[in-house]
Amino acid sequence: MNSPVSLVVQKFGGTSVADPDRIRAVAEHIVRTSHQGHEVVVVVSAMGRTTDDLLRLATEVSSQPPGRELDMLLTSGERISMALLCMAIAELGTQAESLTGSQAGIVTDTDHGRAKILEVRADRVREALAAHRVPVVAGFQGVSTARDVTTLGRGGSDTTAVALAAALGAEACEIYTDVSGVFTADPRIVPTARRLPRVSFEEMLEMAATGGRVLALRSVEFARNHHVPLHVRSSFTWEPGTWITELGTREAGMEQAIISAVTHDTSEAKVTINGVPDQPGIAARLFRALADRSINVDMIVQNVSVGGQADISFTAPKADLPVSLEVTRAVADELGAGDVTHDAAIARVSLIGAGMKTHPGVAATMFQTLAESGVNILMISTSSIRISCVVRSDAVEQAVAALHTRFELDQPPAQGSA
Amino acid sequence: MNSPVSLVVQKFGGTSVADPDRIRAVAEHIVRTSHQGHEVVVVVSAMGRTTDDLLRLATEVSSQPPGRELDMLLTSGERISMALLCMAIAELGTQAESLTGSQAGIVTDTDHGRAKILEVRADRVREALAAHRVPVVAGFQGVSTARDVTTLGRGGSDTTAVALAAALGAEACEIYTDVSGVFTADPRIVPTARRLPRVSFEEMLEMAATGGRVLALRSVEFARNHHVPLHVRSSFTWEPGTWITELGTREAGMEQAIISAVTHDTSEAKVTINGVPDQPGIAARLFRALADRSINVDMIVQNVSVGGQADISFTAPKADLPVSLEVTRAVADELGAGDVTHDAAIARVSLIGAGMKTHPGVAATMFQTLAESGVNILMISTSSIRISCVVRSDAVEQAVAALHTRFELDQPPAQGSA
Repeated sequence: MNSPVSLVVQKFGGTSVADPDRIRAVAEHIVRTSHQGHEVVVVVSAMGRTTDDLLRLATEVSSQPPGRELDMLLTSGERISMALLCMAIAELGTQAESLTGSQAGIVTDTDHGRAKILEVRADRVREALAAHRVPVVAGFQGVSTARDVTTLGRGGSDTTAVALAAALGAEACEIYTDVSGVFTADPRIVPTARRLPRVSFEEMLEMAATGGRVLALRSVEFARNHHVPLHVRSSFTWEPGTWITELGTREAGMEQAIISAVTHDTSEAKVTINGVPDQPGIAARLFRALADRSINVDMIVQNVSVGGQADISFTAPKADLPVSLEVTRAVADELGAGDVTHDAAIARVSLIGAGMKTHPGVAATMFQTLAESGVNILMISTSSIRISCVVRSDAVEQAVAALHTRFELDQPPAQGSA
Repeated sequence: MNSPVSLVVQKFGGTSVADPDRIRAVAEHIVRTSHQGHEVVVVVSAMGRTTDDLLRLATEVSSQPPGRELDMLLTSGERISMALLCMAIAELGTQAESLTGSQAGIVTDTDHGRAKILEVRADRVREALAAHRVPVVAGFQGVSTARDVTTLGRGGSDTTAVALAAALGAEACEIYTDVSGVFTADPRIVPTARRLPRVSFEEMLEMAATGGRVLALRSVEFARNHHVPLHVRSSFTWEPGTWITELGTREAGMEQAIISAVTHDTSEAKVTINGVPDQPGIAARLFRALADRSINVDMIVQNVSVGGQADISFTAPKADLPVSLEVTRAVADELGAGDVTHDAAIARVSLIGAGMKTHPGVAATMFQTLAESGVNILMISTSSIRISCVVRSDAVEQAVAALHTRFELDQPPAQGSA
């Protein structure tokens, strides 16, 4: 058996190809990788703020742009960046071939604006590789089963890259971005935050879900389900970044810190419905009504008070607050519940760590740290590798910094610690 | 037999969709046409200066952009304009569906940058019409037999519109632009220039070839060959413009003026090779050599002088002058000919008129008019419905104005005059 040439998928985000200088730098890196003996498949996003500019144009001609036409509009952005990138690669003497989502065989359902990939028919990508041309594929876009152009939604380019990596059996999927990897906390808030050399898919999923902006949740899920190792790294320094992989038991024992990172998120608001009769099925009714209006509810906390009545609080995106309140008030009226209150000045602070599964007391230490810093906790929710606390938004930076110090995240984990 | 609904193709150029306001105005016109009971198929160019902006980006990353990638880049422009136009139409309550060149079935050869249409498979256009959606097709682009995105070259959107009109059996192809039709001369030079209500394909071809900028030569040829009546009109006033049609003998007798228009062109330079031995095959050798370098030679004049030697002059685009001179000098050396001289300060003035076929003396009147105006003639060439004179470029406005007055082009032709 011949040892196959190693294949790597390299995905470049909007800031990585924001202008002709950046495009030339990216082209040089691709050619360098290729000269090192790798087969390279490139996935590229639209340049810089192109997508936002196009969206603004759409709002100027339409109050409610049809999804099909919005997708046709937005997908022009990647055509521009991928064609320019191919030109820049060709300028360096290496052949390249741009492929639209359709040409690359990214087949999706017909749900415009947030289409799901059904299948990857990467024949033309393989043909390009066989002809020694670097395939440069448009991220974020596909072709629907109805032969229409679709987009995969925000973060869709990462998903394109992971799907291609899975379909082609790539050794790794490199996600290039404007940060140098995944950090123990947001370096803008915690100057001593440290780049993590490696995290597990599960940790990354929790980070993505709780405010870590580096990777979209969906692409991490896709990578985990298809066993595609991810490597998040900088397109400005080109240094090694953070690997996101499956961790075997031994590796977990060898390398895994108790806590990997502190994340935070200020994009949500809290809604509380007070004095709900404590009967079965009431929470179901409320959250079904919210789901019917496509409200993406995040944390849910229900307390039963002494009088047999319950308070239900939930968080949801601030942008959806008017609809969330409308739905919640309607349900409260039906149930004969009390007031509906809301609070947009909240933030969520989360501790993530695969190691906490086997270390009791992490939650207690977290609560105590926040208390000692004078940070009041408004809501709590936990998973097996995450603890989240909702706090007042003006306390978020203090909370993140205190937790980062308390769990010694500015120090690399000791060798052999469990 | 049912009388079919009349079908009209409406093509909007870049200035017609230059910004959201213009796009809304175009959408209103399309919906108005549709409400008048017509089936409308729309062809649209990229917005305003989009194509130039994209070309500038390409030059920033590449000294010689590969044709395939340049086409991928440039075709993003029409995706943007057509998607926005569909949104604006939908905003007015009428359904619309954007179609790329590929989706509209514009099948071309593989000659990137100037592909030729081989076939129009307009199934999806017909499906949209049957479903009462206005098809909005990207001009200027197609899909090659190798499944790559192609462009049709400058003026390609007009060609797309005419090709679709021919394939769909449209009643007319309306070309909307920023002028109100075809004029007897350039109104910027001749303030009394008059809009022509109707010209023949042949006259329009001569006008397009001699500086009339309204329509690309190629689209007029296509329309003539496929018997598609063209209607050039303004997207700013929406008034009737100029019809370009086949003229029957009776119509020609009824309406045809001797002269329809004066055109001019300052985009060419003149090259002269002096003292060429007067032997067969020499002109062939020179113009084959120029053709091999893709020099688009326009006028050619050869004079045999008394000594048995010839001077050969030709005009070609100013942009190609360096290559033209290089080729001509090489041929002159081979032949042992004399000097090669050139002159970029020239202009061509042409009289166009299907009526001149049957009216001798037009040429004499033209030369006399120029002489009386003190305009020196450097070269002359004629066709059956055109006479062109090359003059010094600083005399061009005077020449155009004098001819426009002498042939009474500011007056509508007398009723019944032949």
